[in-house]
Amino acid sequence: MSSNTFGKFFTVTTFGESHGPAIGCVIDGCPPGLSLAAAEFSRDLGRRATGRSRYTSQRREPDEVEILSGLYEGRTTGTPIALLICNNGQRSKDYSGIAQTFRPGHADYTYWHKYGIRDPRGGGRSSARETTMRVAAAVVARKWLLEHAGVRVRAYLAQMGELTPTAFHWAAVEQNPFFWPCQEQVPELEKNIDVLRRSGDSVGARVSVVADGMPPGWGEPVYGKLDSELASALMSINAVKGVELGDGFAVVTQRGSQHRDEMRPDGFSSNHAGGVLGGISTGQPLLASLAFKPTSSILVPGQSVNLAGEPVEVVTKGRHDPCVGLRAPPIAEAMVALVLMDHALRHRAQCGDVGPVEPRIV
Amino acid sequence: MSSNTFGKFFTVTTFGESHGPAIGCVIDGCPPGLSLAAAEFSRDLGRRATGRSRYTSQRREPDEVEILSGLYEGRTTGTPIALLICNNGQRSKDYSGIAQTFRPGHADYTYWHKYGIRDPRGGGRSSARETTMRVAAAVVARKWLLEHAGVRVRAYLAQMGELTPTAFHWAAVEQNPFFWPCQEQVPELEKNIDVLRRSGDSVGARVSVVADGMPPGWGEPVYGKLDSELASALMSINAVKGVELGDGFAVVTQRGSQHRDEMRPDGFSSNHAGGVLGGISTGQPLLASLAFKPTSSILVPGQSVNLAGEPVEVVTKGRHDPCVGLRAPPIAEAMVALVLMDHALRHRAQCGDVGPVEPRIV
Amino acid sequence: MSSNTFGKFFTVTTFGESHGPAIGCVIDGCPPGLSLAAAEFSRDLGRRATGRSRYTSQRREPDEVEILSGLYEGRTTGTPIALLICNNGQRSKDYSGIAQTFRPGHADYTYWHKYGIRDPRGGGRSSARETTMRVAAAVVARKWLLEHAGVRVRAYLAQMGELTPTAFHWAAVEQNPFFWPCQEQVPELEKNIDVLRRSGDSVGARVSVVADGMPPGWGEPVYGKLDSELASALMSINAVKGVELGDGFAVVTQRGSQHRDEMRPDGFSSNHAGGVLGGISTGQPLLASLAFKPTSSILVPGQSVNLAGEPVEVVTKGRHDPCVGLRAPPIAEAMVALVLMDHALRHRAQCGDVGPVEPRIV
Amino acid sequence: MSSNTFGKFFTVTTFGESHGPAIGCVIDGCPPGLSLAAAEFSRDLGRRATGRSRYTSQRREPDEVEILSGLYEGRTTGTPIALLICNNGQRSKDYSGIAQTFRPGHADYTYWHKYGIRDPRGGGRSSARETTMRVAAAVVARKWLLEHAGVRVRAYLAQMGELTPTAFHWAAVEQNPFFWPCQEQVPELEKNIDVLRRSGDSVGARVSVVADGMPPGWGEPVYGKLDSELASALMSINAVKGVELGDGFAVVTQRGSQHRDEMRPDGFSSNHAGGVLGGISTGQPLLASLAFKPTSSILVPGQSVNLAGEPVEVVTKGRHDPCVGLRAPPIAEAMVALVLMDHALRHRAQCGDVGPVEPRIV
Repeated sequence: MSSNTFGKFFTVTTFGESHGPAIGCVIDGCPPGLSLAAAEFSRDLGRRATGRSRYTSQRREPDEVEILSGLYEGRTTGTPIALLICNNGQRSKDYSGIAQTFRPGHADYTYWHKYGIRDPRGGGRSSARETTMRVAAAVVARKWLLEHAGVRVRAYLAQMGELTPTAFHWAAVEQNPFFWPCQEQVPELEKNIDVLRRSGDSVGARVSVVADGMPPGWGEPVYGKLDSELASALMSINAVKGVELGDGFAVVTQRGSQHRDEMRPDGFSSNHAGGVLGGISTGQPLLASLAFKPTSSILVPGQSVNLAGEPVEVVTKGRHDPCVGLRAPPIAEAMVALVLMDHALRHRAQCGDVGPVEPRIV
Repeated sequence: MSSNTFGKFFTVTTFGESHGPAIGCVIDGCPPGLSLAAAEFSRDLGRRATGRSRYTSQRREPDEVEILSGLYEGRTTGTPIALLICNNGQRSKDYSGIAQTFRPGHADYTYWHKYGIRDPRGGGRSSARETTMRVAAAVVARKWLLEHAGVRVRAYLAQMGELTPTAFHWAAVEQNPFFWPCQEQVPELEKNIDVLRRSGDSVGARVSVVADGMPPGWGEPVYGKLDSELASALMSINAVKGVELGDGFAVVTQRGSQHRDEMRPDGFSSNHAGGVLGGISTGQPLLASLAFKPTSSILVPGQSVNLAGEPVEVVTKGRHDPCVGLRAPPIAEAMVALVLMDHALRHRAQCGDVGPVEPRIV
Repeated sequence: MSSNTFGKFFTVTTFGESHGPAIGCVIDGCPPGLSLAAAEFSRDLGRRATGRSRYTSQRREPDEVEILSGLYEGRTTGTPIALLICNNGQRSKDYSGIAQTFRPGHADYTYWHKYGIRDPRGGGRSSARETTMRVAAAVVARKWLLEHAGVRVRAYLAQMGELTPTAFHWAAVEQNPFFWPCQEQVPELEKNIDVLRRSGDSVGARVSVVADGMPPGWGEPVYGKLDSELASALMSINAVKGVELGDGFAVVTQRGSQHRDEMRPDGFSSNHAGGVLGGISTGQPLLASLAFKPTSSILVPGQSVNLAGEPVEVVTKGRHDPCVGLRAPPIAEAMVALVLMDHALRHRAQCGDVGPVEPRIV
Repeated sequence: MSSNTFGKFFTVTTFGESHGPAIGCVIDGCPPGLSLAAAEFSRDLGRRATGRSRYTSQRREPDEVEILSGLYEGRTTGTPIALLICNNGQRSKDYSGIAQTFRPGHADYTYWHKYGIRDPRGGGRSSARETTMRVAAAVVARKWLLEHAGVRVRAYLAQMGELTPTAFHWAAVEQNPFFWPCQEQVPELEKNIDVLRRSGDSVGARVSVVADGMPPGWGEPVYGKLDSELASALMSINAVKGVELGDGFAVVTQRGSQHRDEMRPDGFSSNHAGGVLGGISTGQPLLASLAFKPTSSILVPGQSVNLAGEPVEVVTKGRHDPCVGLRAPPIAEAMVALVLMDHALRHRAQCGDVGPVEPRIV
């Protein structure tokens, strides 16, 4: 039932609030023998980190991962791997105002009604800070997936507001701080962000994820379908309001003769399905997209109510992300990697006896 | 791990193939004392049934539900409720051709690679026939939700191909066989379907679901968020390629000042969020949308390969659904109801001591 | 949460009451490709069946298993296997008396307090009738375990009242209707039962289970230990009040130098541990024992209360089992087999990459 | 699947090895609003701590609990509660000898065969050090159980080797370092331990647990029976080889007329069942017993094999517990409390609508 645990076999349990002493996670079910070191977490955590550029929120989080358990002489032992990151960055701030007010677009009102108590410091458990541990846990999953199955998961910013890429290069994605696939457009992107920041407003974004090197056969009908669990994983990321597999909502106006991916001995003719049929991977690249809402923490005043039920005006001071989607690609990659890792082990459990089957079209 | 079980507390385990002797399900965790009779299943199963009109597939399935357990003197006892429907409708057909060929857009190829064995009769387990038991199980959930929480779940066809409703009336939705919210457009819809049928092709659709009467506080951060589990539930329906909550992908171009739902003492000013913030219900109506791909079983020939890896041409004979989305609203309702039922009980487990909390804005 | 589901990966969900139309189960997670036929269930169901001899309850239950799903051309497909047994044997009896009274030693009073409603017909869900489906489901598990892992699970009656075996032969166990390992004592056993029956009383029993051919390495620390899950599985059988692994309660007076099983290159010197260390199998035979209470349905009158809280005298009429333990060995075998099957798949999931490790002492 | 997580709704995930930097746990599903402070853990951790007296192992573990998350202003918020204890006590010891040898009676050989890798430092994950976090997590459960349900869980040492209590007083249990219920026998107990210690050997023990104040109705048929989950919980404790509910193995020789607990308007006449019928609590005290094997870490030399498969002689040096059962009562209490807490919430989930039912016999 544990809703702070993700996965069925390769499980990740996260804990911690934005302004508590630490955040952390426990990875359970990891195969033994995988080499692992604390230094391996810094790349992905750095990619995710706020303060990455002047265009995202300025909080400084060194995010040093400490591995508390599950390793012996640099290798996983099959026992739980606990990861811990101390929250050095939080400031001793006065949250009494926020504690009395429900910010529009945030989880303040809903946590209050669910629990009858709410940690107002930096959003508490509902803070995007929590996603740090998803990225950390996924470092382990991504390493295993690459080494043992040849699967690689990558994401990019596919749209910010009205702006869409005019070209696509994976190389570009890691060259700019926005995971934008067209380096030539980066100045335009920066200009858009500056305009937003000055206006005190924010904008939404689309992020796309691709998993290459997929084997056919991962996924479980009917309620553990690969796409079903990907949808759950991606929708669980803060601020996500939509998830697509393959052509997504574009299928609404497609014809069957157009959508279905024909097969030839040398491979599929197209990939409208996004690499999943009947909830099971086809061996084609997995394609998913997510819609991120514009952050609600903006300088533009908004109407709300306070604990006494009286009308109040809310203005978010201090840090301000004009587009949360800019930081989201590493988180999207992480969630896809965790789903795939889980399914890799689940597939082995039930179908470990089934050898590679012919014909395999590539 | 059981991937044929849906839910964490109120669980539904389904079984059966399209052409086996029967399909069925086991509902576990149902509260005791709920009145229930076999006749109560006929309405929703009838709404879902194929053969509903000349515009959907002509298979005749009376779909009589037999309750095998869990009742005493017409009331649930808290023990598992098993439901069974005999498959009277399947014909003794020659499936040897299909058994040798992977139909494009179907799960044939992926099941083959996962399991090394595949039941080719009518799609086997991957048939939409399976969704019958989702609808049946949800009859129990919907009854409890309405009686105990005042929650009602309804769905409609929001788009078929390029056609969108020009008006919206819930009354219309149940007046035509397409769950279309604008009765005036029904002739146009029928005409579109006739054209599709004659061309031997199919088209996609969008279905929207609304849950009214929601209390605030249902849902569990962070991996059991209400929207996360709705996404999983809806994406697990056959042919679904996208899921949206609230404004969905439209948020990509929205500004924060536009998207965030402001609050006033007399209620929320808007519902862009679709009734969920931070994964927990706000008390506003829950709004979700799904994209259904055009069915791949069409008369237009398609390229594929056979078991020997040789190229073959595939034409689906016999029954043919020009738009699977036409039958989907009851299934979408069912999955939303199952998620809500599960969360109602989970909320009670953890927060049963938390009384209604002020202020409640309506 | 589903408490009518057993297992984590290879799951069995059972349903049905003693006097409902049918009982059944759904097996999920079974590896594909296993040959299976309805006839294969008759041996174990026959071994378990009541009416086996004049010494156990005389109810006639042919217990014909119908396989409703999950097979294609005689082989498992990896989809859920539903098994159904119609309850032909129940008589149209007047249960109004029982419905008003809580029988001592039965679940009547506790079900009433939990659910506020109770199915009084034959014990409803708390009837030992439910164990039939455990035995049926275990037929699948036992076949896979034997064919794929060389593991065989057998049980016998190790004590009835004060009587203990004076010799032990596996061959004898299947030669008499009591699973008694010493054929010479059978007349004495029969005489004891006859005396009990005439006195209208019942007696307890001890059943022991042995799994041969175990590989080392099955089991998961720390809450999914093999012995922990065996204890749960065996204690879940009706009327069981105690479970032992290896030497069990005899360890209380043992010395460490006596209990610990020493190892030599040619194998373990003893098996006090019962084949499990640290929750993981050693490769030695798995040894477990269970204590069955004397059945409470006896002719000797007992004091109780009725629904009005008034004192009443209860006498069980009709069928009467002088020792439920006599029928229990197949059920104990079933539960052990289900645990082992589950762990075989779970082990493969996490440790499928770990090859056989040296040294292996046999 | 996560086998380092205990519980279904109120879940506890533990991590850490004996000689790693820290051990810890994450509690998920705790009701909000419970007051909690780090100081509240010291009593139970102190009771469990090694080094309690000269009669148990001399390791010094201050075991200071740090609460990392889940609290706001001293109350639980409903989000995960992470607890951490730094391992200050471990010494920099040379484990190269132990790394090459499989100690008899330990998990060395089985971990090696399962994972192909083994952390030899102090037993790694299989060390009883792990049980510290069970006790810590149970502090939260015990507090809630007492405050919200009036349930209290207590355990005592019921037998050490051949020695059994000659009198029983709960007051005595907390007066001596052995949880022995008869203070007069403590000198005799101490003498027995001294003899054992001098002989370099160890002995087994029996521990009994009692839960008072139980309401009727907790527990879930049929695989989540209260006794079934208690058996699993207790058998998961290191060194436990047997579990009994109520009369346990004594039922083997009992008659039905003797065992079944008769009911009268003023209550049950006896409690042979140990407070559970049909897997559901009766409202009587819950009674369970556990058998602890004699520890295998003794000075008496034992035969074993090394990594090369060669015969070796093993002698455990340093710390040495003559009877692990002496420290076990707090751990047994903890596991029972965790099971009850989980069932309290699960009961509320399914049966929250069922009011108290008449007649209630006390």
